[in-house]
Amino acid sequence: MASFYCLTFLTDYGLEDGFVAACHGVSARIAPNTRVIDITHLVPPGDIRRGAAVLAQTVPYFPPAVHVAVVDPGVGTPRRAIAVAAGGSIFVGPDNGLLSWAVSAADGATAAVSLTNTALWLDAVTPTFHGRDIFMPVAAHLAAGTTLAEAGDEVDPASLVALPLPVSRVRDGAADAEVVTVDRFGNAQLSLTGQDAARVGAAPGMAVELRFGGQRVTVPFRTTFGDVAPGELVGFIDSAGFVSIAVNGGAAAPRLALRPGTPVTLSVTELFSGPQFRFRRPRDTIVD
Amino acid sequence: MASFYCLTFLTDYGLEDGFVAACHGVSARIAPNTRVIDITHLVPPGDIRRGAAVLAQTVPYFPPAVHVAVVDPGVGTPRRAIAVAAGGSIFVGPDNGLLSWAVSAADGATAAVSLTNTALWLDAVTPTFHGRDIFMPVAAHLAAGTTLAEAGDEVDPASLVALPLPVSRVRDGAADAEVVTVDRFGNAQLSLTGQDAARVGAAPGMAVELRFGGQRVTVPFRTTFGDVAPGELVGFIDSAGFVSIAVNGGAAAPRLALRPGTPVTLSVTELFSGPQFRFRRPRDTIVD
Amino acid sequence: MASFYCLTFLTDYGLEDGFVAACHGVSARIAPNTRVIDITHLVPPGDIRRGAAVLAQTVPYFPPAVHVAVVDPGVGTPRRAIAVAAGGSIFVGPDNGLLSWAVSAADGATAAVSLTNTALWLDAVTPTFHGRDIFMPVAAHLAAGTTLAEAGDEVDPASLVALPLPVSRVRDGAADAEVVTVDRFGNAQLSLTGQDAARVGAAPGMAVELRFGGQRVTVPFRTTFGDVAPGELVGFIDSAGFVSIAVNGGAAAPRLALRPGTPVTLSVTELFSGPQFRFRRPRDTIVD
Repeated sequence: MASFYCLTFLTDYGLEDGFVAACHGVSARIAPNTRVIDITHLVPPGDIRRGAAVLAQTVPYFPPAVHVAVVDPGVGTPRRAIAVAAGGSIFVGPDNGLLSWAVSAADGATAAVSLTNTALWLDAVTPTFHGRDIFMPVAAHLAAGTTLAEAGDEVDPASLVALPLPVSRVRDGAADAEVVTVDRFGNAQLSLTGQDAARVGAAPGMAVELRFGGQRVTVPFRTTFGDVAPGELVGFIDSAGFVSIAVNGGAAAPRLALRPGTPVTLSVTELFSGPQFRFRRPRDTIVD
Repeated sequence: MASFYCLTFLTDYGLEDGFVAACHGVSARIAPNTRVIDITHLVPPGDIRRGAAVLAQTVPYFPPAVHVAVVDPGVGTPRRAIAVAAGGSIFVGPDNGLLSWAVSAADGATAAVSLTNTALWLDAVTPTFHGRDIFMPVAAHLAAGTTLAEAGDEVDPASLVALPLPVSRVRDGAADAEVVTVDRFGNAQLSLTGQDAARVGAAPGMAVELRFGGQRVTVPFRTTFGDVAPGELVGFIDSAGFVSIAVNGGAAAPRLALRPGTPVTLSVTELFSGPQFRFRRPRDTIVD
Repeated sequence: MASFYCLTFLTDYGLEDGFVAACHGVSARIAPNTRVIDITHLVPPGDIRRGAAVLAQTVPYFPPAVHVAVVDPGVGTPRRAIAVAAGGSIFVGPDNGLLSWAVSAADGATAAVSLTNTALWLDAVTPTFHGRDIFMPVAAHLAAGTTLAEAGDEVDPASLVALPLPVSRVRDGAADAEVVTVDRFGNAQLSLTGQDAARVGAAPGMAVELRFGGQRVTVPFRTTFGDVAPGELVGFIDSAGFVSIAVNGGAAAPRLALRPGTPVTLSVTELFSGPQFRFRRPRDTIVD
C-alpha cells in the first residue's frame, strides 16, 4: 500500500492537556513526512455519536488519508482496536461505532483488521491512553507505508460495531427526525437530508412546522440564514446537506432547547405570506 | 505569480466542529505543498471588527503568504468575495471590511479581484459555507501558483469595503479613544498608538487618567505590567504598539467593565509620586 | 549542531488572540522547513507549575526537537531567557522553573546559555511579548542549525531556576502527596509514581484511602477507570505513570474538590471485598 501524506486526528482529549500533542509527537517519530491535521479534539468526553457525526461530515473534504479517531470510553476494556479501509482512506480507532458513519459515507469498508500486531505499538502500552500508545503509532506506520494486512488480523467488515443511524422517517406529509448535532453557532442539524425535505414538500420560500417536546414552532424555510431578518428563526439545507434550524445572527438550539437526540417532526405548512415571523420566546428556554 | 509556501487562516468557526478541518482538507487536496497556519478560529461569531483587529496585528509577523479570513455574517447574501494583493501577500475573504485593516497595515491594496472564476471553487457550493466552498479553494489555488487575475474580475481597490477605524483623536492634553480588543489576559487595548501617547505627554514613570462610563481611574503608566505590584492596574505600550490597560497577574477589562467599543479618554496627570497606587474596586464592577 | 525538523510550542497565550500565530509566523520566516507542533496554549495564565507538568509529561513522546515554552509572568523583569540542551533536545524559555521538570525528565541539562545574542532576536523587542520577539526567533534559529553556543553566554546548568518538586513522601504504610494536575476529564493526578504506590502496598484489586482537607475517601485501586461501574471513583496508574483519581465517565476532581496543590495522603485499606463502593457526595462539593 502506498504511503499517505496526510493523517487526520479527531478525539475528545481537549486542548488544555498534552494528550493531543503526545500523539503528534508519536506520529512525528514514526512518520516524519506525514502531515497531521486536527479535525477537532473538543468532542464532549465519551460522546461517540457526536464524534461520528463530525468525522463523517468532515473527511469527505480530505484527500485520501489515514483518519485516526479516538472517542473511547471503553479504553482498557476488551473492545477491539481496528483499522478499516474505505474509499481510498484508512480509518483507525476503537471498534465502538465511532468510525461507522464515516466509513459508510466513504462507500463502506472494503477490508478491516483488528490491531493485533504489537510490533507497531509503542513499547509500553498504558491501559488508559491507547490513542498515544496504539492508535497513533499504528496509524503513523500505515501512513508511512505499512499495509493494512500487516497491522493485524483480518476481520469481517460486517462484524464491526455500527452506530445506529439517527431516526429519519419520511411519512405522509411529515418527517420524523432527531437533532444530530448542534454546532458552534447554535444551529441544530436534523437527521433529514435535502432530499427528505423535498419529499415532504419543503422548498425555499415555504414555511415548516417543527414539533418537539410538546412545542410547535413554525419557521420560514429558506436557502440560508441570511434570508431572514437578524434574530429570526429559519430552516435551510446546511453545508453538510442536512436540514438545519438556525437564527440569523443568533443561536437556535439554546433558544428552542434543542439538544442532540431531541426528536423533531417536520411538516410543511401553508405558503409563508403573513407579516414577518417573530418567534415568541417561551419563558423557560435559554436565550442566546 | 510565484507560489506561496504558507497560507494563514482566521475565522469565527470555533474549534468544536469540523468546519476548520474541512477547509484544511480542501487546501490539502489543492495545494498539498502549502502549509496552513491557523491564526485563530475563536473570533466571536460575526464579530468583523475583532477579526479585523487580530488579523491586522498578526499578519505582519508572517512571511509573504495567502491570508484567508472568514468572518462572514452575510454569507449567502450578495456581498462580494474578494482577493486583494498587498505587501507581497494576498488576502482572501468576504468584502465586508474584515480584510481592510490588515491590507492597510500591509501598505494598502495594489490590486484586487472579485472571485468570479467558478472553476476555482468546489464543484458544489453551499449557501452557508463559502469558507470551505469558495474562499479556501481559491486561496489554495493562489498559494499553488494561480495568479490573482485568474481568480476573477479585477475590481478597483478603492471600491472595497473599508471598516471604519476606531475613534482616535488627540487633542490638547487628552486623547479620545476606544477599546479595540480585549485579549486572553483581560488586557484592554486602546486605539492609541505609542506615538499618540507621547503626543499627549504620557511616558513611562508618569500616571494617566482614564475616563469612561462616568468613571475616572488613575493608573501608573509604565513599560510593562511587571513594573507594578501584583494586582495593580497599569498602562503601557503593548506588543502591537498600542496603549493597553492591564493588571499585573490579573484581568483589567472585567475589573473596569471595559469592552470592545467602550469610549475612553486618556490624559496625563501629575508625576506619580505618592504611595503605591491602589485601585478601589467599585462595588458594581466584575472582578477577576 | 544539526538542524531539527520539529519545534514544539507551549504557552499560556490562549487561542482567541493572534499571539500564538504571530510566533508561528516568526518561525515560518526564520525556519521555513521546521514543523511547529503546538503542545498546548491553554495553560492558565501565569501558572508555571501547570506548564511545567504538561511539558515534562509530553516531550518524552517527541523526537529530538527544539521545545519552546513560555509561561512568563515575569516578562519584562530581569529574569533570564535561556536555552538548555538535554536529552538530544533544546529547551527554550524563561528561567523561571518552567523548563526544569522537562529537563529533568530528559536526564538533566548538559549545557545552557543565556539568550544574549540579540542578533537572533526580532529587530524590535517589546517588553511584554518575548515569546514572539525573543524566544521563538532564537528557537527557530536553533531549529535551523544555529548552535547553542551562538545563542548566548554559557551559564552553569546548576544556576538555572528549578521548580520545587511536588511533595511526595513515602513513609510507613502511607504516602504524602499533592495533586499535580487536573486534566480535561477531571482526573486528579497525584505526585506519586506507580513505584511509590507499590511501596505503600497499593496494587490493582485493593482499595486505597485518600485523606485531604479533613475528608477520608476510600476508592478501589484498579488498572483503569473502566474497571469500575460508571459514576464510581477509582484510583489507577495513569498514562504518565502517576497515581490518578478518576470517575468512570465522570470528573473526580470537581466531585472531591481536589485542585492542583491539594495535599493528599494515600494509604492502603483492607482488600476490597464489600458490596460495590458508592461514594456519598458531601453536600458542599461541586458535582460533575
